[in-house]
Amino acid sequence: MSERVSVGAHEDASRTILSWLKQYHKELAKTAVAAKMGETYLDLTAPLPVGQELEIILGGDPLGLEILRHSAAHLMAQAVQTLFPEAKPTIGPAIETGFYYDFAMPRPFTEEDLAAIEEEMKKLARQNLPLQREEVDRAECIARYREMGNPFKMEVLEEIPQPTVTVYRQGDFFDLCRGPHVPSTGRIPAFKLLSVAGAYWRGDEKRPMLQRIYGTAFATQEELDAFLQQREEAKRRDHRRLGRELGLFLIAPEVGAGLPLWLPKGAIVRTILETFLRAELTKRGYLPVYTPVIGKLDLYRTSGHYPYYKESQFPPITFNEAGGEEEGYLLKPMSCPHHNIIYRSEMRSYRDLPLRLAEFGNVYRFEQSGELGGLTRVRGFTQDDAHIYCTPEQLDVEFKDTVSLVLFVFRTFGLEDFKVRVSLRDPAGDKYVGDPENWDKAQAAILSAVRDLGMDYVVAEGEAAFYGPKLDFLVRDSIGREWQLGTVQVDYNLPERFQLEYIGEDGQPHRPVMIHRAPFGSLERFFGLLIEHFAGAFPVWLAPVQAVVIPIAERHHDYAKEVQAALRALPARVEADLRSETMRLKIREAQLQKVPYMLVVGDKEMEARAVGVRSRVDGDRGAMPLENYAAHLREEAKLPES
Amino acid sequence: MSERVSVGAHEDASRTILSWLKQYHKELAKTAVAAKMGETYLDLTAPLPVGQELEIILGGDPLGLEILRHSAAHLMAQAVQTLFPEAKPTIGPAIETGFYYDFAMPRPFTEEDLAAIEEEMKKLARQNLPLQREEVDRAECIARYREMGNPFKMEVLEEIPQPTVTVYRQGDFFDLCRGPHVPSTGRIPAFKLLSVAGAYWRGDEKRPMLQRIYGTAFATQEELDAFLQQREEAKRRDHRRLGRELGLFLIAPEVGAGLPLWLPKGAIVRTILETFLRAELTKRGYLPVYTPVIGKLDLYRTSGHYPYYKESQFPPITFNEAGGEEEGYLLKPMSCPHHNIIYRSEMRSYRDLPLRLAEFGNVYRFEQSGELGGLTRVRGFTQDDAHIYCTPEQLDVEFKDTVSLVLFVFRTFGLEDFKVRVSLRDPAGDKYVGDPENWDKAQAAILSAVRDLGMDYVVAEGEAAFYGPKLDFLVRDSIGREWQLGTVQVDYNLPERFQLEYIGEDGQPHRPVMIHRAPFGSLERFFGLLIEHFAGAFPVWLAPVQAVVIPIAERHHDYAKEVQAALRALPARVEADLRSETMRLKIREAQLQKVPYMLVVGDKEMEARAVGVRSRVDGDRGAMPLENYAAHLREEAKLPES
Repeated sequence: MSERVSVGAHEDASRTILSWLKQYHKELAKTAVAAKMGETYLDLTAPLPVGQELEIILGGDPLGLEILRHSAAHLMAQAVQTLFPEAKPTIGPAIETGFYYDFAMPRPFTEEDLAAIEEEMKKLARQNLPLQREEVDRAECIARYREMGNPFKMEVLEEIPQPTVTVYRQGDFFDLCRGPHVPSTGRIPAFKLLSVAGAYWRGDEKRPMLQRIYGTAFATQEELDAFLQQREEAKRRDHRRLGRELGLFLIAPEVGAGLPLWLPKGAIVRTILETFLRAELTKRGYLPVYTPVIGKLDLYRTSGHYPYYKESQFPPITFNEAGGEEEGYLLKPMSCPHHNIIYRSEMRSYRDLPLRLAEFGNVYRFEQSGELGGLTRVRGFTQDDAHIYCTPEQLDVEFKDTVSLVLFVFRTFGLEDFKVRVSLRDPAGDKYVGDPENWDKAQAAILSAVRDLGMDYVVAEGEAAFYGPKLDFLVRDSIGREWQLGTVQVDYNLPERFQLEYIGEDGQPHRPVMIHRAPFGSLERFFGLLIEHFAGAFPVWLAPVQAVVIPIAERHHDYAKEVQAALRALPARVEADLRSETMRLKIREAQLQKVPYMLVVGDKEMEARAVGVRSRVDGDRGAMPLENYAAHLREEAKLPES
Repeated sequence: MSERVSVGAHEDASRTILSWLKQYHKELAKTAVAAKMGETYLDLTAPLPVGQELEIILGGDPLGLEILRHSAAHLMAQAVQTLFPEAKPTIGPAIETGFYYDFAMPRPFTEEDLAAIEEEMKKLARQNLPLQREEVDRAECIARYREMGNPFKMEVLEEIPQPTVTVYRQGDFFDLCRGPHVPSTGRIPAFKLLSVAGAYWRGDEKRPMLQRIYGTAFATQEELDAFLQQREEAKRRDHRRLGRELGLFLIAPEVGAGLPLWLPKGAIVRTILETFLRAELTKRGYLPVYTPVIGKLDLYRTSGHYPYYKESQFPPITFNEAGGEEEGYLLKPMSCPHHNIIYRSEMRSYRDLPLRLAEFGNVYRFEQSGELGGLTRVRGFTQDDAHIYCTPEQLDVEFKDTVSLVLFVFRTFGLEDFKVRVSLRDPAGDKYVGDPENWDKAQAAILSAVRDLGMDYVVAEGEAAFYGPKLDFLVRDSIGREWQLGTVQVDYNLPERFQLEYIGEDGQPHRPVMIHRAPFGSLERFFGLLIEHFAGAFPVWLAPVQAVVIPIAERHHDYAKEVQAALRALPARVEADLRSETMRLKIREAQLQKVPYMLVVGDKEMEARAVGVRSRVDGDRGAMPLENYAAHLREEAKLPES
């Protein structure tokens, strides 16, 4: 929260905002970073605007934090220039997680360099150097940078049309900048340098490679500590690392960027996810279909996906060269056109509706390679897709059922913390397809659904797609990060484009409404979330290996195999570790592989037909008759049901 | 079987073969259609070759049947010309199921025309007109056809280099033909016209459309009757018709030829097939994977699938136009390259082998559009694919396990009648990849597997692929038609191309062997076979709807729903037919939909908490307590297990 203050008309206009604040608003003065008058930002070192209303921006505000971080970037650049006079500063903005600064540098920065730079920053912060804003002549400024041999700043300056520019000066360092900034280097309460990476000047791979140093800053040390801890935790849970360590998935350059291959252990989880959801869908009256991963180009001309979304699609498969078949195909970016073809392959009556067609549909979209990383952004993925075709009267109930399914899915995975965003049409807009009366009904249906289900929601008016209103789910995982998961969308457009019809009670043809929905969104992305949410330690029902039998000595091998066979017959996913390694090592490896149970068997257990149960969470739980353990495992391994 | 006879040196060379046969080989004379001397075919009306060995070709021989049918085609052409002088005969060969003849005709033939032509054929057969072979001057023959206004025959004649040609004459009709033929029109024991269709002259769509009449002929009336009955039965079982009537699948021109969409009832069967096989694979130590449906072009350059098999693939997806990413992608024609990438993503030791990677892999191949039809030949299909990577020593056991899995699958579906073809390398050939010693071992392994498993097999020496020996399964369905199903192939080539390795017991890198195998072959094709094999009446465990509850009156609706809910909880796939239609109609429709059980519920059943069980096979089975029926259904619905 920023705070509004009024500066009296009798105040001394020659003092700074900061000195006035210190006198009249002591508390605010402590964490203030800048001020805003109307739409203009002011440094706290600016002359006091007498007789004006001011908004004091605090370090704890999102805006204040951005300013703080921008000042931290300057502080870092100053430290770099002090230690590495050969480094040429280029640009250094605040970003969502902190800030960075790019330097032209003859060699990469090392970890040791980073530590030294951070030390130097602390030293400069202790000196509490004032940050001074100056207006300077642009041409002079260019000349100054030419002297310093910095063509990057010169290039930036060349593009500024105004004859004067502003710079900020602190000690020997100055930087071209619009500001605002904190008043002095001592007013950045907590900062930390994080990493270094190469980055092309202006993101253009044909231009020089620069050294980018990432850092972060916060208004309090507590916030910085919490951030760093979450960052460590996120690293520990990183699905790319865990995916490799646990043998869950693989992204191979030979196959292609963004095209994950599910390794056996990941594939087992995926099959369970599909089986779990399929059972739930059957219960809720969905009908399965399978459709090909390509379709004729004309199909996408009908749907409007081609050529309008061409840049986010793989190029079409065409036969022009061969001269044979003129018609091309497209790797499907979504399954709706195929489902529409199924809908209209038969005459439908209102008695047949709602028709709910579900498919784990493989779809392909050409994301830019810079955006690809692990499973969260990919080029080939599997939607847990379904399309519900219903009458306008049925929309209310269908929408609620859909949302309740999504909620059931979230709760199953312990994703209890989520909010929804309801995107409605702009009441004044006219870009929308479909009958306004139906829109009103659909919007009312969505709003009543989120209210009835007691959900935390925000309404975004004017944010609806042109074809219908929608609901987006934003889910927080176990360490508080937000993930955008599936959406539920109402669609009046595709039924129109595909001329879908049903015969109503009146014997006349009518147009159905479509709902698109996917609770997981994409199986790949959802799997990525699950890996991080559970830090790889999947619940028993989902674990690729549920238990490992560990014989103490070779004479227990037969019994270990017997235990394994008995549990596999449940069925359960049980391995026996018969390698000639120590028990301790086998337990440690199973623990690292996040296997829920380690079943140690030695003389005692063999005699009693028991297993020594060790849980990955609670450690040793002592011996248990095999039969009892089996009953327990069977219970725990059951697929969740609504 | 043809029969060999010797013609004495003292015989009268002026008599015909037929008259000699009638004297000395009365039985042979009855069914003989032609003779063969050395490599030369002779008509039975040819002069007796004295002092020679002859092979008498009988109507029951495959070769004799072909001659018989060719003569039947002439007979049909004669009948057509008698009835439709405007029809110009073109060509008329024997084919696998009988024969056809193409006529240039100003209008299509009707069903009535066909009946009249068949009548005329019978009349001409009763006249027992002799078929006379004549050598004529080619130029004269052309002139003759010019007179008759037949440019088609003229075109054929133009292409013959010899100055003389042979024609066969019967009554007023003559036809350009090499023969041989039966001696007279009365010696075609049984024939039948089947259908009429348009066909382009020489299969070229730019040339005139002709009328093709299909017919068949046999050596006995019994064989013809059996053929016609099987044909009727095949029509009744045609998976394209049943696929539509039972709502199993759809091929839509908007999506593309050869790209089936699985409709809900087909999709349910497919999911069960996958679940059934997946359980079996898990039991046998296979590990599941999922891989994308595309891969970089280079991947297929490595595997050798591109550009060598280019003509049977969809064209690559390339970015040349956009100028961005030079590298192209290919819709995968098979999954082996992806699995190889998984194999080599980790260091493998002999202890990790055999590694069995399984996937229901969607693959795409560009079959020519003329070859597409229903599910038996498609462009997009799902292989129940797996690759086994093993040491040469493990090949024997792995191969046997693979074959035993295939046999288990076949038996599960009642496909008990099959044979296998073992394709081995040519001992003298040198086109083969891999160590000859390993080939010997692999071939021995295959042969010992088929022998040990007591299979009916044929050995095809020299028929192996260059990369390894293989086994093909030929299965007869319930009406005796042969289907080529999956193969099991040994592969020494891809491990080489992908440089696959494992560390052996000796600490040195070695090359593994690969087995490719797919018991179903393609899920689409196998589903097509199953539909025809079961005539759409799937066994209970596979039926998309296992039972329909049919209330007698509206007051039984609640109980019907209760029965449905109780059975669904088993779980079972049970519908309740609550429409306001008569019980009789509902039963008839369920019967047409091949639902295994109809459960009629009225007052009596409601009171007794029972169901009136009607089986699609045995009809009414009387009332049964619901609980007992449920137990029975649960048992019958269990997935088969090995």
